[in-house]
Formats: sequence, C-alpha cells, structure tokens
Amino acid sequence: MDARTVPRMHDTLLLFGATGDLSQRYLFPSLLHLLRDRLLPVSFRLIAIGRQDYDDVAFRDWLRARLVDGQAGDSHARDLDALEDLLQRTSYIAVDLRDRDAIATTLSRFADRPCVSYLATPPDLFVPVCEGLAAAGLLTGPSRLVLEKPIGHDLDSARAINASLRMYLDEERIFRIDHYLGKAPVQNLLALRFGNTLLEAVWHYRWIESVDILVAETAGVDGREDYYAHYGALRDMVQNHMLQLLALIAMEPPSALDADSIRDEKRKVLRALRPMTASDVEVNTVRGRYEAGVVEGRAVSGFKHEGEVETFVAVRAYIDNWRWAGVPFNLVTGKRMAARTTEVVVSFKPVSHWLFERPVRERATPNRLVMRLQPEENIELDLMGSLAAPEWGAMELQPMELDLSMASAPRRRIAYERLLLDALNGNQTLFVRGDEVEAAWQWIDSISDAWRDAGTSTQPYPAGSWGPADATPFLPVTACSTPHDRSGS
Amino acid sequence: MDARTVPRMHDTLLLFGATGDLSQRYLFPSLLHLLRDRLLPVSFRLIAIGRQDYDDVAFRDWLRARLVDGQAGDSHARDLDALEDLLQRTSYIAVDLRDRDAIATTLSRFADRPCVSYLATPPDLFVPVCEGLAAAGLLTGPSRLVLEKPIGHDLDSARAINASLRMYLDEERIFRIDHYLGKAPVQNLLALRFGNTLLEAVWHYRWIESVDILVAETAGVDGREDYYAHYGALRDMVQNHMLQLLALIAMEPPSALDADSIRDEKRKVLRALRPMTASDVEVNTVRGRYEAGVVEGRAVSGFKHEGEVETFVAVRAYIDNWRWAGVPFNLVTGKRMAARTTEVVVSFKPVSHWLFERPVRERATPNRLVMRLQPEENIELDLMGSLAAPEWGAMELQPMELDLSMASAPRRRIAYERLLLDALNGNQTLFVRGDEVEAAWQWIDSISDAWRDAGTSTQPYPAGSWGPADATPFLPVTACSTPHDRSGS
Repeated sequence: MDARTVPRMHDTLLLFGATGDLSQRYLFPSLLHLLRDRLLPVSFRLIAIGRQDYDDVAFRDWLRARLVDGQAGDSHARDLDALEDLLQRTSYIAVDLRDRDAIATTLSRFADRPCVSYLATPPDLFVPVCEGLAAAGLLTGPSRLVLEKPIGHDLDSARAINASLRMYLDEERIFRIDHYLGKAPVQNLLALRFGNTLLEAVWHYRWIESVDILVAETAGVDGREDYYAHYGALRDMVQNHMLQLLALIAMEPPSALDADSIRDEKRKVLRALRPMTASDVEVNTVRGRYEAGVVEGRAVSGFKHEGEVETFVAVRAYIDNWRWAGVPFNLVTGKRMAARTTEVVVSFKPVSHWLFERPVRERATPNRLVMRLQPEENIELDLMGSLAAPEWGAMELQPMELDLSMASAPRRRIAYERLLLDALNGNQTLFVRGDEVEAAWQWIDSISDAWRDAGTSTQPYPAGSWGPADATPFLPVTACSTPHDRSGS
Repeated sequence: MDARTVPRMHDTLLLFGATGDLSQRYLFPSLLHLLRDRLLPVSFRLIAIGRQDYDDVAFRDWLRARLVDGQAGDSHARDLDALEDLLQRTSYIAVDLRDRDAIATTLSRFADRPCVSYLATPPDLFVPVCEGLAAAGLLTGPSRLVLEKPIGHDLDSARAINASLRMYLDEERIFRIDHYLGKAPVQNLLALRFGNTLLEAVWHYRWIESVDILVAETAGVDGREDYYAHYGALRDMVQNHMLQLLALIAMEPPSALDADSIRDEKRKVLRALRPMTASDVEVNTVRGRYEAGVVEGRAVSGFKHEGEVETFVAVRAYIDNWRWAGVPFNLVTGKRMAARTTEVVVSFKPVSHWLFERPVRERATPNRLVMRLQPEENIELDLMGSLAAPEWGAMELQPMELDLSMASAPRRRIAYERLLLDALNGNQTLFVRGDEVEAAWQWIDSISDAWRDAGTSTQPYPAGSWGPADATPFLPVTACSTPHDRSGS
C-alpha cells in the first residue's frame, strides 16, 4: 500500500466483552505488546465495556492482576511500564449490552474521535450493541466495527446478520475477524506463493497431489455444550478457519494485494467448492463423536448429547475450476484427539519416473510444503537430497526438511496483535468480507443437508485417538498412519 | 545398482607418476582416507611407479614424510596406523615411462590379479605406458585403465588418443577422470534434479532464465607456461570441467542411473551446443589475458607469451534443443582473478506478475539454485519469504538462502576418494566416455576456429580483477557486478 493512501490510524478502541475470556487471554496481552513496541498512536485510549460493576480503578486492578499473575501472566507482563501505561489509557464502563439506550447514553461522549468498536461478545448481542453504537454516533464514518465469529450458524442466519450490519455501516468499515489469518505462517504462505517462481510453477493440479488441512484439538467440548450442540465441528471450525486457509491456498493470484482483490479471489474459490450431495456424502465425509478415553495421560469422559452432533469431521472437498480439477482438499478437525496440531500440508506429485533403485526408493517421499500453526508456527519445505559419502554403490537419497520461517524473524507475535493493528489502521486484507462468509455457509449447508438426506450418523471414537477408523484415509501422512497408533503423550 | 550386479572390487592399483604433484596432493591422501575408513579390500596393494630411483624403503620414507609433514601434511595424516598400513601395502618400481619394454618386464609379475592402472602422467606418456601394460598382460579384461586429463588438445588429437586406447581395451574399462564429477555437490545436484518434483517441474527454458558456470582462480600460469601456451583457458578448463558441469545440468533425465544411460544424455547435450561462428564469436565470447596486478594482497606479474593465448575466457553458450531453447549458459573462467570461486548458478525467471509494492519490490530477487564447488562445497536454494512482524503496512519480502547440502552429511571427502573407489569397483558413472570428450572438443574447436577467422584478440585485465570489462555481462550476479569492485582479499 502506498504511503500516501494509508488511512490515518484510529486511536480509540471500544472493547465490548472486556472481562470475557478472549479479552483476557488475547486482546489485552496483544495491546500490551503493541504499546510496549510503540506501534499504537500516542493518543491511544481504550474503553473497556462489560456487565461487571467495576469503576476505572477496580477494573484496572482486576486487569493488572490478570496480566501480571493471572492466567495470562507469562512473559508479556514483564514490561511493567507498558502495563501501567495501558492501564492509564483504559476507562471502564459497566453497561447491560442488551440495552441499546444505555449503550447510546453512556458511550456518546466518545464520538469526538473516530473509533474502532470491537465486539468480543456472543453473536446475539451484535444487533443491540450496533443499535446503541449507531445511536451514539459511533458507527458513523470513518469509525469501524470489529466482529468475532461466529457470523450466523447457516446461510440464512449469516445473511440476516450481514444485512443488519449494513444498516449501520458499509462493508469497508466492517472487520470480521478470523484469527487464523493473523498468524505469521499464513502471511508467509502468501509471500511464498507470490514471491517465488518455483512455487508459481507448480501451484496447480498438474503438480499438486493433495492438500490436507488438519486442526486437531486435545480439548473437549467441556463448558460449551450448549453452543456446541447448536454447531458441531463442521460449523464451529470448518466453515471459518479451515475454509479461510483453503481459500488462501487455492485462490488465483490477485492482480494486486489490496483487501478486495484478495477477497474477490477467496470468494471465487469458496463458490467453486463442489456442493456435497446425499449420494457422495458417505464417501467424502466422516462424522465422529468422542467417547471416554485418555488424552495427554488423563482419563476423560465422552461427549454426551441426545442430538446427532459431531465433535469430529473429515471432509474431502473438491474445487471445480481449472487450477484444482481433481485435487482433493482433505479437511479434518476434531476435539479430544491424540495431539494438538494445526497444519496444512501441500503434497506434490511424485517425480515422473523414479530413477533410484531400492533401498533408496523406499526412503523417498514426495515433495511437501508444510505450514504449521499449532503448537509451533513454522513453514517447512520437504525435499530430497543426497548424502555425501563415497560408501554408496549408487546414488543415495535422504529427505531434507527446510525451514522456510524467517530465521531472522523477531519473536512470534499473537495473531491478534496484527489484526488489532490492521483494524486501527483500516487495512481489511486479513479480515473476512460478508460475501465470503455467505459463500462458505452455502457450501457448509450443502454438507449438513446431505447428512440429513442421507441419514449420516456420527461414529464413535475414543478420546485421545485420531478419530473414527473410517477417517484414516483423510488424515495427512504427517499425522499418524493409523487412527490409534500415535498417542498424545 | 543392484547388489548382485556390483562387480567384484579390484585390489591392485598401479599408480604411474607416483612422485608427481597430483599423487602427493590428492591420490595418496585419498587412499589413506579410504584405508582408514575400511573401504578398500583387505588384500589391497599399491604399486607406485615413477622415474625416481627409490627402493621400497626409500619410497615409503619419502611418502611418509610427505603425508605427515610435507605439503599434504594436514589432518589426513593424523591416523598414523592407517598411514603405516598404506606404506606396508605399497611397493615402488622405478622405470622410465617412455620405455614400453622396461614397463612390460618390471610389471608383468602383477598380472596375477585384475588391476587398475592409473596414469597420473603427462598425456604424451599414455601410449608408451599402455603398450607396456598390454605387453605385461595388465590391460587384459577385467583390468582397467584410469586416465587424467587432458585427452588431446583438439578433436583430431583426442580422436587419435581414444583410438590408441581402444587398441588395448574396451571403452567399458577406460576411466577418464574429471575430478569435478567426484565432488559432493555434483552428486547432490543429480539427487536434487531427479528426486524432486519441484525441480523437475521448472527444469527447462520456460522457468529458467540463465545458467552461469564460473571457475575463477587466483593462481597464475606460473610454472606451466609451456603447457598453457598450447592450451589457454578455453582448452584447459572449458572443454572438460565446465562442459561436464553444463552437461549434467542440461541433460535430459536418463531412463536409469547406470553409467551409459547418463553418458548418452550428456553426449546429446554436448552435441546440441550451438557451434560458434566468426559472425557471433565477438558477441558471445570474450578472451582476456592478465597483466600485472595485486592478487590477495600480493603484487604479481602479468602473463607473458608472444602468441595470442587467453588466461581468461567468457562464452555465452546455447543448447539448441527443446528443453533449453534460448537459455544462455554463461561459462566464465580465468586465472589471477579477484577471488577463488567455482560456482554454478541456475537463475529462474521472475514471477509472472509482481504483486508487491515498493520498497518490497526492490528487495526481491528471482529464485536461484547455487552450487558451489570452491572454496566451500555446498548447494543453496534462494527463495523469497516474508518477515513475521506486524509493523508492515503491506506484505514484506525477504530473501532466504536455504542450505541444501545435507546437514547430517559426514565430513567432506576429497573428490578423488569417490573416484578411486568407483574405479576399483568398476562404476563408470562419474567418468567421461570417449565420445563425450570428442563432442566437447568439436564445440571447443568451433570457438577457436571462429576466433581465428574473426581475428579475435585477447583483452588485457589486471591481475586481481574479474576479467576484461567486456566480460562483465557474462558474470553471475553472485559474483561482482562490475569487474573491479570485488577484491580478492
């Protein structure tokens, strides 16, 4: 982006849900880091908004305790100067978020400067909060709105939410967060794809065998049963995070790197996903539900719910366009699995003809690009090289794992740091546009409709495994080869 | 190679020129390493042959001194047990190498076992030594013959030498050494080319912009004026080492990795080199001759010779086939240059469309595969990655240099270790076949004929520079950008 066109950075952040889990664990630590690194405007101010009946002093004490020695109290609180600076910039406002009039009344005094309102709240509060913000003049341009997922639970509800939002502000000022997009490897992937001839040349079905996207959690549904019963793994993870990763990998190169050029291409991919039908849903999906088992050495109970809700889903997706014809995109996610790992594996086809003899041949693996988001963040390129030893009777091959993360990169940053900064700066590139959300839901709805029509039921899997046995072919080779042979220990 | 078809290893090595420079610096140290690492047969014996009037004891004393504290006395002599073992296995025979009858008489007693005769001698001794060996029964199958370069000084003389050799033994038992082929990065290049889809996909003119092969020496001609006056840089370096590297990079994938499949493909490339003509020789070549200057901080004198002999040559070669249409192969070699370096740079084309804005764009470099043979041995892949920092207004790119040498590789070995072992084992893959030598000379002759027809003269360059100014466009970007701005200090 040219320096002349960078929008002026907003300096007022209204944070709704300030005492919630997301704020405590990610948003305040991110702001602390940004402040410490002098990346926020000198006039930055934070208006924390919640139901709890604190005044400024009490909230600051509560927040200080959380950041210094609470659950978020690790290294990021070391810079106590930055912490005190953040607390001094923070005001707290207690208000019932269902009460649009109270919101309008208490917040109208902040309409003196353009602001960013961040809704770290359940989605049923989006509309009343927006109405209150609008009445207070806080959604007038150039003020912006940041929303956390989920945006609806199917196409119709997502459309309704988007329509409501657009009553108050334009799409260019709505920032839908998918925090996966703030992770460094995702941005590195874009740099790799569009900065390297070697990847440009092979980034299509002629050279790519398959793409695997795996999000395995060891956590269970515990404490979120009600939410989860309404969503299940498909709607909770695949619709947003995993389809966003798929879209970034599969999109055509945009003609420029501005937000709408990229989001146009992502939407095209999502619209090109082949809808699932009742006749292929049994072949191309597996639903699972965890039973009692052992995760990370601890005995855990199974997921109990009377309805047919999946805690695990495997989907083989196809993108019906010229670039991706016939390439399977295997999307697998589950709770209570053997290990916590999020990775994207682009597997290239084998070389056209294999020159090397046994036993060299058996050591050969096809080239792979592996992007890991959890538990570590990195990108790795797997190539074959030769061992430099004269003992060989013939050519010897050995796999090489090349780390494509920048060796000189500064310390890892929380994904929300980047996203908060972009929201304050008005850069929408890493935020999800409304029509993308709807395109994703349209495809997701085709799967749940197909499950309903085909009567697809969930298959049990023991907590601590890699999911139901039927899902094994959907797993990347970098995970286990059989569902139960890799423990999460 | 299948274990059943590995030929039995020969255990007798006859080394002609045993007191010469090559033997002292490379061959004996290589044998020492192979013996120490138990890679030679238990019955291994070495017959050292030279003009000097030593007996076994005197020769062993001379050799011990050379290996322990002579010019070759570095780390390889530390294993004194291996040294004494080598000496005990060594006999010395003093004989005039011009006297075929004396050779036959003194050596016939070694015809009891199949042997490998290694001619580390000037080429004018090849024929008399071969006649003596043949008379002694030492060239009878399955005995083998190893030859050092040069094989002739033009096509006619090379043909004559090859024809002479074939009077005594078949091509399958003639091992023409090009020690560049024994270097680990060369073998790693083959593994990379034929083991990786990512390189298979781009290894042709659609994705490769140019290939540079640079052999820069800081040494002068000193002491070899007579030889050099007869050869010049073109015949001394380009015809053998550099065209062998070119052939390995440019050859079609063989259908198997056996010696003749590979050498068939190399010969095809050499035959597809576009012959130079008097009309294009001025555009596609530069001849240079060093004058007095400063190399590595030391004042040196220029090369004096009355004839038109080049100590530097730059050639832009084209391979007229489907794979390489239009891709320049820039071959540059010279003596008394700014630095000692041997490298092959495969430069890929830039990405089709550049998405990144300034100043990111200026930091971008096209992808490159860099194979270094001197002074270090390694292979490097240069890609572009992104810096993981939220300070960016837009996507940031940063060059990455990935080391493709095997990190776990054992210590570097002298190229001759591999080649000696292959000769004893009968593996011809890394040796040059007679028709390859002739194809290389045919193209080299087209250049010297074109120089003669066009009256191309040598351009002076100061010792310690990167050659004549006209040659700058022939140099790889990894070397200096102007001929004189990179000193060899």
